[in-house]
Amino acid sequence: MEPDSLEFPEITPPDDHARSAAIALHAKLIKPAGSLGRLEELGVWIAGCQGQSPPRPFTRPRVVVFAGDHGVAAKGVSAYPAEVTAQLLGSMLTGGAAINVLAAAAGAGVRVVDMAVDTETSAMRSIGEFKVRRGSGSIDVEDALTDEETRTAIAAGRMIADAEVDGGADLLVAGDLGIGNSTPASVLVAALTGSEPVAVVGRGSGIDDNAWMRKAAAVRDALRRARPVLTDPVALLRTSGGADIAAMAGFLAQAAVRRTPVVLDGLVASAAALVAEDLARGARRWWMAGMLTGEPAHALALEHLDLGALLDLDVRLGEGTGAVTALPLLMMATRVLAEMATHEQAGVTGPLTPAPTS
Amino acid sequence: MEPDSLEFPEITPPDDHARSAAIALHAKLIKPAGSLGRLEELGVWIAGCQGQSPPRPFTRPRVVVFAGDHGVAAKGVSAYPAEVTAQLLGSMLTGGAAINVLAAAAGAGVRVVDMAVDTETSAMRSIGEFKVRRGSGSIDVEDALTDEETRTAIAAGRMIADAEVDGGADLLVAGDLGIGNSTPASVLVAALTGSEPVAVVGRGSGIDDNAWMRKAAAVRDALRRARPVLTDPVALLRTSGGADIAAMAGFLAQAAVRRTPVVLDGLVASAAALVAEDLARGARRWWMAGMLTGEPAHALALEHLDLGALLDLDVRLGEGTGAVTALPLLMMATRVLAEMATHEQAGVTGPLTPAPTS
Repeated sequence: MEPDSLEFPEITPPDDHARSAAIALHAKLIKPAGSLGRLEELGVWIAGCQGQSPPRPFTRPRVVVFAGDHGVAAKGVSAYPAEVTAQLLGSMLTGGAAINVLAAAAGAGVRVVDMAVDTETSAMRSIGEFKVRRGSGSIDVEDALTDEETRTAIAAGRMIADAEVDGGADLLVAGDLGIGNSTPASVLVAALTGSEPVAVVGRGSGIDDNAWMRKAAAVRDALRRARPVLTDPVALLRTSGGADIAAMAGFLAQAAVRRTPVVLDGLVASAAALVAEDLARGARRWWMAGMLTGEPAHALALEHLDLGALLDLDVRLGEGTGAVTALPLLMMATRVLAEMATHEQAGVTGPLTPAPTS
Repeated sequence: MEPDSLEFPEITPPDDHARSAAIALHAKLIKPAGSLGRLEELGVWIAGCQGQSPPRPFTRPRVVVFAGDHGVAAKGVSAYPAEVTAQLLGSMLTGGAAINVLAAAAGAGVRVVDMAVDTETSAMRSIGEFKVRRGSGSIDVEDALTDEETRTAIAAGRMIADAEVDGGADLLVAGDLGIGNSTPASVLVAALTGSEPVAVVGRGSGIDDNAWMRKAAAVRDALRRARPVLTDPVALLRTSGGADIAAMAGFLAQAAVRRTPVVLDGLVASAAALVAEDLARGARRWWMAGMLTGEPAHALALEHLDLGALLDLDVRLGEGTGAVTALPLLMMATRVLAEMATHEQAGVTGPLTPAPTS
């Protein structure tokens, strides 16, 4: 893995001609103008990403779950003990986790990558190809990673995105798994949006008031360590991120390089996306937000990225679940453009008066 | 068809034991309590409807589109001329309408029923088994139907629901098709929620300000004719509904009789649902709302029925599209309960502290 590979090429936006063609096609379909609302906007975005109108229905949506432990979990910032990361990883490999079930329902495949889980078992060896270390540092008192580990993790995320796209993936989701990971994610969001700790700290996996106060203190301390490096995305991931989040940032940026659309999940993926936008300016044009989570830092990150979420169903599980829940809507948005009849084809009369366009 | 068949049996609610079992099962699955948000509530509702936990994934969701013309369309209340009803019906039969595409994406079948389209063609004969008349009356100046037509239409909706359930349907959607149909729907909502005309009149298929004023005047006049009968649901459908809406009301009430869950679409289905709740008290426990539409009368109807909508994507096309867009989420909610591992099965440790329940 080449540390030099961190130079991202310029990100070009989705294709404006295909977007315009999709907007024009929507106006011809047998429905009142704009009457499919957000599904129309989604279809236009997908057409732009694919560079063609009508867009093709997705054939290989893929979820990559980036797993890692975080030293800060020992400070009591989560409702769960750290060993749950490895336990849940085991469940993901046997298909019993939420992301397995929801991805199967959405027709998406799942790949799990161990970036920094604090366990070594033979069962996990198959997903440890890119593993950087056992647990990232406790960011309230130390860096999460060394500089080399950070670069290696970002490069790993890029390689994983490349492998997925080369394997035919036409839609990507980055999922997260790691007890305590909403703490570094909240720090990254606070650092990059200029927010105070109390404005970003949420309930994560369902913590009580005491754990919330411990988490707020950890975020405050980590944010103090993050502020000197906040204009340097690699240094920020090193100081306040972790191997899982660094890999996710590389993955999200590289998806944009490869002109492949991404559905963002909740807080952790959106924090990684904030950093990825600094790694590869303009990458956010290749992402959409699947669902709101109620985590305050998540909403701040989406606002900063100027991305409106599609769903608001109070799903706050992570793993990619919020994003995957939105996949059927993307498929529908695509099929509307690909399969609905036009007024001309169907011999259906248009409106009597110009209808307002959406 | 027996006018006497309008007596609906008592509606019993979904099964409380199955609901409780689903809530208990959710607490055992490997995720923080409540972290799947509305998907958890949906799963519990479906378990109650099916009377078993975990619920079965749906195998035969069905959309029935009730088509009819409305004399009031001649008053300029729609952006489209009345002949578009029959044209769109033709497109539905050949698979090019929005509902065909979205239902196919959701794995649902579509049946189209001509209740009162103002055309007679040989192509439409196959869907005219229950046809009551050509166009319902212009409700601003006359009754939509005779008493016998009203009873026949309600009974037709009941028979259609029975046929679908007998054919294996395990989830139903009622779609609407008819230029001008948001005008009678708005009148029914105003009548049953005690609202003023200006509080219920929306933009329907995308009308301009002049058409909006014509629609508001028609609603005002029709509401004056509706008020004397608003405690009699059959008389209200006769005065201010139409054959399509009457059949839809019978269909929705009968679905509850048959203990079959329904996803409500937009304004027209929700107006029919308001009347159906008066036909068969308690039927609303068997319905959920797929999507908000921006139509003010739709929001009023859902509030009156105490149903919160799952999606808010500005889809306002009708035909059942808003409901069908939500179907994949119901499927996901079901599969979560049926397929996710429990803490015990997976050997995953629970929370350190009691997590707040949702």
